[in-house]
Amino acid sequence: MGKHHADIAEEGDRVAAPIVDGGHVIGVDIGGTNLRLALADTAGKVLGRWSTSTSGVVDAHTIVGLVAGGVSSLVEQCSIDPTTLRAIAAGAPGVTNVDTGVVIATSYLMGWRDVPLRDLFEAALGIPAAVDNDVNLAAIGESRIGAARHAPNFVFLAIGTGVGAGIMLDHKLFRGHGWTAGEIGYMLVPGVSEAASEEGMPGAFEAMVGGEGIKAQWRTAWSASATSLPHDLVATRIFDHALQGEPLALATLTQSARTLAYGILNMALMLDCPLFILGGTVGVHPALGEATRAILKQRSAQVAPVIMPSTLGADAQLIGAIRFALDTARERASIL
Amino acid sequence: MGKHHADIAEEGDRVAAPIVDGGHVIGVDIGGTNLRLALADTAGKVLGRWSTSTSGVVDAHTIVGLVAGGVSSLVEQCSIDPTTLRAIAAGAPGVTNVDTGVVIATSYLMGWRDVPLRDLFEAALGIPAAVDNDVNLAAIGESRIGAARHAPNFVFLAIGTGVGAGIMLDHKLFRGHGWTAGEIGYMLVPGVSEAASEEGMPGAFEAMVGGEGIKAQWRTAWSASATSLPHDLVATRIFDHALQGEPLALATLTQSARTLAYGILNMALMLDCPLFILGGTVGVHPALGEATRAILKQRSAQVAPVIMPSTLGADAQLIGAIRFALDTARERASIL
Repeated sequence: MGKHHADIAEEGDRVAAPIVDGGHVIGVDIGGTNLRLALADTAGKVLGRWSTSTSGVVDAHTIVGLVAGGVSSLVEQCSIDPTTLRAIAAGAPGVTNVDTGVVIATSYLMGWRDVPLRDLFEAALGIPAAVDNDVNLAAIGESRIGAARHAPNFVFLAIGTGVGAGIMLDHKLFRGHGWTAGEIGYMLVPGVSEAASEEGMPGAFEAMVGGEGIKAQWRTAWSASATSLPHDLVATRIFDHALQGEPLALATLTQSARTLAYGILNMALMLDCPLFILGGTVGVHPALGEATRAILKQRSAQVAPVIMPSTLGADAQLIGAIRFALDTARERASIL
Repeated sequence: MGKHHADIAEEGDRVAAPIVDGGHVIGVDIGGTNLRLALADTAGKVLGRWSTSTSGVVDAHTIVGLVAGGVSSLVEQCSIDPTTLRAIAAGAPGVTNVDTGVVIATSYLMGWRDVPLRDLFEAALGIPAAVDNDVNLAAIGESRIGAARHAPNFVFLAIGTGVGAGIMLDHKLFRGHGWTAGEIGYMLVPGVSEAASEEGMPGAFEAMVGGEGIKAQWRTAWSASATSLPHDLVATRIFDHALQGEPLALATLTQSARTLAYGILNMALMLDCPLFILGGTVGVHPALGEATRAILKQRSAQVAPVIMPSTLGADAQLIGAIRFALDTARERASIL
């Protein structure tokens, strides 16, 4: 926690004038397993954090109720006047219409369809609310105080259980006409399955690069004669063993890194994008970044994008949410 | 010619008010084999055309000289007062900095590097000039009066000798931070060669989808026992035979269409783009569009972009150039 607090305090907020002194905002990261909240001042400095498990929780109203409880806890924990809360912003793990505040669809795990999340927050909390896709918020976080600080053009790749991209073009998030820009899980590159994926199932690219996919690849390749490692291993553990030279782990890593490198190459060509930030639990693993960089280097005649790990790590979404809440507070203040 | 003239006359110019009545602009399409000019009035109506061969001509000053001669011919041919010329805009077959008017690089055929084409035109002709990549201008043409008329988001795919994409996002051309957005010739999709291409050589995607690449694929697959068709055939002739069911031609078409479909799928995912216009001599062939559409349809669980042929055909670049010249004339008029 200390490191990120320091970053935020150092950076302050240079982009726009602070809103009413003494104001506060709430950032929310709605994940598949955890719900995380942070309360920050108008300089973006995090004053308190709160989290709870969301395992088994799929109902949006329940999530909003948990958030409301978390906000109360944070207000108490930080000893602030609740009337100083200016806005709340949340990252949702799905396709989100930022204009209407509706989460159009999440993955099969949560199964949300057209949830008016912004309105639910505003009704429950009585303050301005905003919602966006969580990967987009992570890209905002990295662009303000992270690895892509002040970079006008970059792609944030969230590689956790699955894969998603937040695309920043000329200092602005590019969300697409149907809010699905960067949904690259189904991208087709050499080496992935050409079979059409079923609706809601992991895409061909994700099956090679996402954490769940890597686990499955490992299990398929595994045999007792090929490795002394266990049959069940998470992606980051496989990558740990790859760093130590374990052959099957290394082969699994290389396959993921090659797929990722090809995907980055395609995005770099199409978007003319010079910088890719690897985030998410799997994405920040140094073995993946290094192997991906090595494969891209061999092809550098065409494009040579820079690959960097996220510096905000697991905090990227939450810090992006705080920044988005600050923007929302300013916007609403100037409208009202 | 008649058809396009009619289109232009019908559409007029609804986007912006006409500049000074009686004014004229010049559009230029600089191709590898032909240089084409058109003179238009302020409504965008083409009043005259002029063209010449550029085979063997690679020097930029020579091209500018040819253009100057063409402009004089057009002025005479159309019986207009040369002082009514308000602007000239040209599409160059390469990476072009629209802000500075410099052609940064063209393919190995012309070999241009950092050619200040806009300044050369202004010096030679004494009127405001503008330059852009030719595929971008074709996208402008299609967006104003062609297949993508008024579509806010679409990709124009120019498939001729090689392959390039003009990307329109929210009614604006997306050119990229280094002016190379849409240079998809090196895109990697299942089925293409994974070997790193050499600088200046056709990319893996282009080798399957571009006219030169298709010709080469045909020659590689050809044997006297496999087909009664000749060893040397251009892509459009191969596609003609595919429409008639010739097996080797059909296999060649299917391979190109599958590669193209995968590329379109990747772009549609990344950009959240619903519309793709196929242009260029190879791209407008009905067999390619139909086969590509059929392959995408099988995968429609993910994304279902609409594939349409260019309606401006070989005129797309030139009409885009005229529109760009009109924009340039308006812009300069309001600045001066």
